[in-house]
Amino acid sequence: MILAGGVGSRLWPVSRTYFPKQFHKLLGPRSFLQSTLLRAGRVTARAPILVCNEEHRFLVAEQCREIGVEWDQLILEPEGRNSAPAIALAAWYAVRRDADAVLLVMPSDHLISDEAAFAEAVKSACVGAAEGGLVTFGVTPDRAETGYGYLEVEDPAGGLQKVRKFVEKPDQGLAEEYLAAGNYMWNSGMFVLGARSYLDELHIHSEQMARFTGQAMEEAQKDMDFLRPGAAFVDSPADSIDYAVMEHTHKAEVVPVDFGWSDIGSWAAILDESPRDEQGNRLCGDVVAVDTRNSYVHAGKRLIGTIGIDDLVVVDTTDAVLVAHQSRVQDVKTIVEQLAAGARSEHLYHREVFRPWGSYEGIAEGNRYQVKCIRVNPGASLSLQLHHHRSEHWIVVKGAARVTRGGEVFTLGENESTYIPRGEKHRLENPGKLPLELIEVQVGPYLGEDDIERFDDVYGR
Amino acid sequence: MILAGGVGSRLWPVSRTYFPKQFHKLLGPRSFLQSTLLRAGRVTARAPILVCNEEHRFLVAEQCREIGVEWDQLILEPEGRNSAPAIALAAWYAVRRDADAVLLVMPSDHLISDEAAFAEAVKSACVGAAEGGLVTFGVTPDRAETGYGYLEVEDPAGGLQKVRKFVEKPDQGLAEEYLAAGNYMWNSGMFVLGARSYLDELHIHSEQMARFTGQAMEEAQKDMDFLRPGAAFVDSPADSIDYAVMEHTHKAEVVPVDFGWSDIGSWAAILDESPRDEQGNRLCGDVVAVDTRNSYVHAGKRLIGTIGIDDLVVVDTTDAVLVAHQSRVQDVKTIVEQLAAGARSEHLYHREVFRPWGSYEGIAEGNRYQVKCIRVNPGASLSLQLHHHRSEHWIVVKGAARVTRGGEVFTLGENESTYIPRGEKHRLENPGKLPLELIEVQVGPYLGEDDIERFDDVYGR
Repeated sequence: MILAGGVGSRLWPVSRTYFPKQFHKLLGPRSFLQSTLLRAGRVTARAPILVCNEEHRFLVAEQCREIGVEWDQLILEPEGRNSAPAIALAAWYAVRRDADAVLLVMPSDHLISDEAAFAEAVKSACVGAAEGGLVTFGVTPDRAETGYGYLEVEDPAGGLQKVRKFVEKPDQGLAEEYLAAGNYMWNSGMFVLGARSYLDELHIHSEQMARFTGQAMEEAQKDMDFLRPGAAFVDSPADSIDYAVMEHTHKAEVVPVDFGWSDIGSWAAILDESPRDEQGNRLCGDVVAVDTRNSYVHAGKRLIGTIGIDDLVVVDTTDAVLVAHQSRVQDVKTIVEQLAAGARSEHLYHREVFRPWGSYEGIAEGNRYQVKCIRVNPGASLSLQLHHHRSEHWIVVKGAARVTRGGEVFTLGENESTYIPRGEKHRLENPGKLPLELIEVQVGPYLGEDDIERFDDVYGR
Repeated sequence: MILAGGVGSRLWPVSRTYFPKQFHKLLGPRSFLQSTLLRAGRVTARAPILVCNEEHRFLVAEQCREIGVEWDQLILEPEGRNSAPAIALAAWYAVRRDADAVLLVMPSDHLISDEAAFAEAVKSACVGAAEGGLVTFGVTPDRAETGYGYLEVEDPAGGLQKVRKFVEKPDQGLAEEYLAAGNYMWNSGMFVLGARSYLDELHIHSEQMARFTGQAMEEAQKDMDFLRPGAAFVDSPADSIDYAVMEHTHKAEVVPVDFGWSDIGSWAAILDESPRDEQGNRLCGDVVAVDTRNSYVHAGKRLIGTIGIDDLVVVDTTDAVLVAHQSRVQDVKTIVEQLAAGARSEHLYHREVFRPWGSYEGIAEGNRYQVKCIRVNPGASLSLQLHHHRSEHWIVVKGAARVTRGGEVFTLGENESTYIPRGEKHRLENPGKLPLELIEVQVGPYLGEDDIERFDDVYGR
């Protein structure tokens, strides 16, 4: 099962609530989620169970489609409750089909460089899980990291064994002691566990969580390709699997590993995992760097010029730029918190917003108007809808559009336009084989996305 | 006379060839040129003679109009030849009307904080100029600056006196010696000189420059409100007044001054002249700064978030971002040189381009299309024109447009649109009292600004 929730606020401004880090392709042609799915596919022939936020269902679907992965089940959380309840949803789903089901639990934002070693470790862990153990992976630390929790183990060079103790994220001094001691390992956040065994332990240590997640899965509704747990889910306490179960259970076991693991927790981690040039830089996109060293510079659609800088992270997106010292990248979430406190939107949305039918991007806005570029996938269709407060001008600049406007249906080609008056029912479709691109100019006193009355929607929205 | 040429490449990305620093409002509601014009108006009742690049004529005109300054003459250089020939153009113009004319020569990108002291200094300098002297202002240095040339003087606390020696920009050690010596002053680049006297000296020390500029002014053509020197101007050697005349003439005099002078040569100078917050920062625009010190952060239309940075300059514009250490801001021109060498455009144009009738801004572009936001001033009119390679869709989003399309003339209001087919003669006017704003979607195989055939243009283009 893949945990595909989470918002990745420390990778702002690329990662945002409605398009968080696991869906971004920051280190190659695959997103972190896609890499995780492909990695899972190499250790088991079973189709994955995914748990993600309701808002991300079309992103997950599109990313699975892109790499040809079919899921066993995609479970939608109406809101995030941290990892323990999410794993419980998958466990309830799994035990109902197979009382002896064993789950390999993988967050969707981890990197593993030695996949053969990972496969071996999973095999060992499965032995423990088959006997009722809740097995975690303990990663051999290569530095005194303060960003991870630790596991104290008996034999860091041994195989499957009991966990002596879970320890919280340490301060620098303690982290150095752990590193020196040699029998402390990073708590990786991946698990192999019998679904039944997990639910039993959850029942003991967080009875409410076990009960409400179970009830939610009993009341779950199929919605197209998705599974929606019942409303009881939001009554469950929110907690991580470590706090809710692992730190309390007597069944905690660990497989010590050294397979090149990283959670992509910050921009510094992205830099660590990137190939660098001779100056120690990772320059992505259109960058002119003069006397720049040991820096991560990520250009979006704009040119970035740098001069005389060291150890910086510079990340540009359409509507926000981050300039941070590498030693402070953990504090990117401080900015996200300030944006949230200011009721802003740069931590929630990108300018380009993905929809099941394609995407739209705001390209200009003024008093009483805004301009969007709309891209519709071949064969896709927007809902039949109307707006109470705005008129729309559509100019097709690529491909072909089928337009429903009131009682008419007609086709527009490249360089053709139409006008949708305020209050008129309309629908936009791409009947062609190529992507459709059009420029939409909206005019009216209120231009919010929520001025939409939907009459028919092929995506069940 | 005001020297309004120059490209200010060290203030990239705000300053660009076609909209350079003197026209920007970086330190308050007036541009550097406007501040200079207003300063000139406080020391003399005479209307200014301006010399600027041909490409900037409408910018100069608009900025003069904005502050209610009427010029005596606006002389257009077909290309920049540095300061000596530019001053010669003004001198030829002035002596023709008044053989005893005295010019106060002011670059358009200087700041002076004590304007009363400046007025006093100009009075002293006029005494010298009336007797044939070429008088410069020597600024009391307050640091060992390596970015300026120096003047060696007899009595740094005295009044008008002969210059002992001009010295080039020193290295750090020499600059410190000059500061310690006490009788070295910064060469400010402002002058008071008799026009006749200047031309005579120019004739002695750079005969070709005197001859070609004189010939150019004899052949000068009036063009609307502008004066265009003849083609001989480009035959003149290019040089600064210091190199061409001041370092050689025996008539060089100096008035030592201490009136809070700064040339705005770099982003560090902008920071020096800005009010700062408690952390020593100057934050302009939409900035969220966390643990940021002694930095200049200039947000354009986007949010900038900073964390844990010191002594940086961060400047954001629509299509380019600069991140530079303050100690290296002199090297911004290195980036500009690299852009020029790469045949790019980010050092030449902004996304928003100013025209005599208003402005346009590219807001999106794709294969075979681009989208612009066009703003037309009340009463203004674009040329009657046609395009061979593109069609245009216009949607009025603010104000009213009068459209000529082939034989028709009609008016469009807000939320109305029209289509200009490829090859059709057309004109856009704003007949109203409010600014007109429209969205233009261009479609065609070639979308360059140079696909324009003009038939009639009220601005003589």
